[in-house]
Amino acid sequence: MDSIVTPSYDIHFDQKAYDELNNHLKQTNYSKIFILVDENTHQHCLPRFMAELRRDVDAEIIEMEAGEIHKNIETCTQIWHALSELDADRRSLLINLGGGVVTDLGGFVAATFNRGIDFINAPTSLLAMVDASVGGKTGVDLGMLKNQIGVFSQPLMVLVISEFLETLDERQLRSGFAEMLKHGIIEDHTYWNSLKGLTKLEKLDPFIYRSIGIKNDVVQQDPNEHNLRKILNFGHTLGHAIESYFLEKDPDTALLHGEAIAAGMVLEAFLSAKLCGLGPNQLADIKNTLLERYKKVPFSQEDIEGILALMKFDKKSSHGLVNFVLIKRIGEALIDQRVPYNLFEEAFAYYKE
Amino acid sequence: MDSIVTPSYDIHFDQKAYDELNNHLKQTNYSKIFILVDENTHQHCLPRFMAELRRDVDAEIIEMEAGEIHKNIETCTQIWHALSELDADRRSLLINLGGGVVTDLGGFVAATFNRGIDFINAPTSLLAMVDASVGGKTGVDLGMLKNQIGVFSQPLMVLVISEFLETLDERQLRSGFAEMLKHGIIEDHTYWNSLKGLTKLEKLDPFIYRSIGIKNDVVQQDPNEHNLRKILNFGHTLGHAIESYFLEKDPDTALLHGEAIAAGMVLEAFLSAKLCGLGPNQLADIKNTLLERYKKVPFSQEDIEGILALMKFDKKSSHGLVNFVLIKRIGEALIDQRVPYNLFEEAFAYYKE
Repeated sequence: MDSIVTPSYDIHFDQKAYDELNNHLKQTNYSKIFILVDENTHQHCLPRFMAELRRDVDAEIIEMEAGEIHKNIETCTQIWHALSELDADRRSLLINLGGGVVTDLGGFVAATFNRGIDFINAPTSLLAMVDASVGGKTGVDLGMLKNQIGVFSQPLMVLVISEFLETLDERQLRSGFAEMLKHGIIEDHTYWNSLKGLTKLEKLDPFIYRSIGIKNDVVQQDPNEHNLRKILNFGHTLGHAIESYFLEKDPDTALLHGEAIAAGMVLEAFLSAKLCGLGPNQLADIKNTLLERYKKVPFSQEDIEGILALMKFDKKSSHGLVNFVLIKRIGEALIDQRVPYNLFEEAFAYYKE
Repeated sequence: MDSIVTPSYDIHFDQKAYDELNNHLKQTNYSKIFILVDENTHQHCLPRFMAELRRDVDAEIIEMEAGEIHKNIETCTQIWHALSELDADRRSLLINLGGGVVTDLGGFVAATFNRGIDFINAPTSLLAMVDASVGGKTGVDLGMLKNQIGVFSQPLMVLVISEFLETLDERQLRSGFAEMLKHGIIEDHTYWNSLKGLTKLEKLDPFIYRSIGIKNDVVQQDPNEHNLRKILNFGHTLGHAIESYFLEKDPDTALLHGEAIAAGMVLEAFLSAKLCGLGPNQLADIKNTLLERYKKVPFSQEDIEGILALMKFDKKSSHGLVNFVLIKRIGEALIDQRVPYNLFEEAFAYYKE
């Protein structure tokens, strides 16, 4: 597939990704090269990745613990210390090889080490390929608050190597697929329809390419999320709160990001029908499609209250009011929508019906 | 004094500073306003500052512990939590009222909270007025490594209110004065001579203005320190290592930043004479002027070894070599100078003579 070229970085695919990386390393005199992995990508992805690197590249491997629960400042501090002890300096490079946790956290570590060193994202999960690794949002969680601490910092390049998807189980693939469905809902009804038609999550390459294209188009028009970029948050205002709430309740049975976002999209589609004219057929289409693919979350009344309390901390809020992205129809999103508090209970009731 | 206008922010002085701040607050609909202080500026500066703020401004005060030893990620984490609990959001403002620790750390906290909120620096120490608060370097220390973690992020405005200098003791004033002497050494021999002539550190306003002007000119030409901006690091390669070493050895008797930089400038002037043609008279002028004002540090052999070991971690290093800023003559600096290791012992011997 052709590379996607942007003013700040390029996104390369499969073999071309390795070729471009090797060219770049040849042309650039990095003082040291570091690869950040978690225990899973260390085992399942790093050997393949290293086999494709130029033979004369001498990289130091830094491993972090896997999982959203470790996406925090303590992990950053460990990596900052590791980089320092391994003589990293301003002219060093960090390659983030992993899912969204690794690319989000690794991007933040790089953007803040010595006031910023080069970093490259090599996403290994579907979620990271179509979402986290593209667009320059880096960050970590602060307690229960998702991505509360971070900066906008663009990677030097993004390497999308779809072979890594073979290392994922079905549940993880489905989690990433939720973000792709979101791309259809906010920007492209035709794409939504073609995604709905997929019975198995395989041969995804052209869909990944389309999703990255949609995300990239949006981000390039508004990199720092003043306006348009907010549409990518559809499903996320409630979805993030749902994800954080269950992560805090019991990390072992927490929802994956895409599972929480899928629930958030059903809830926010309901709000869209109430407030922005989303028609009943499209609302039903969204609910049915998502609940076919994502197991219904059994929200208790206590859960709902906990989720709504968390939501007010969302970064998308301002002046004490929570801003939502809602949709007018599939393919057309509206930013900065205010939602009366009483509709939230109704939305959860609709979800549970 | 006239404001200093830059493409990214303006620097306002004294009463004009309060007027501009009040105008800005009137024009901007911040969701919340926070003022970061340490225990000293809380007591000595905040009451004066608040008395000049518009009456309708409702600001939350966040206090951190005073001192370089608290300029770390743990303090940032406490402040990020405090901001979250006090309902800060993307449309909030942080005003950093304090010395360099408060403006460096507060700038970093703001630049990373919700991926960046507005911040304003109101420096209260001479050091922060002429150095830390201008130029967009934010950051914190990582263990013994000074400013190892940070980002370049520009304040919205800088408020230089020289009245706050009355809250400082002579030793703190002298610490800030070292950076002003540095501005003379690297850029302006005439300015150096006029600073030398000051017998008392009072009526400093025109000199503060000149120092900020020099720093700002340099920073505007090279905001992210690729080339020219490095000249501001004269005295700092060894000076930072000296400061960190004594801070770690015993925080209670540590050197102030300017005291460490003064020693660093004598040492690096010696290296300049050895390597870059700095003449013996100017070398003697620098050594005599600095040792008249700053008590000679009694470096033991163990101290020297500890300092040199720390120096290799300096951010100005790359590829395992330490880069120095040296001077050809007073008023003309040279960047990216490599120093043979054996000269360091000689430099300390010259300092101790």
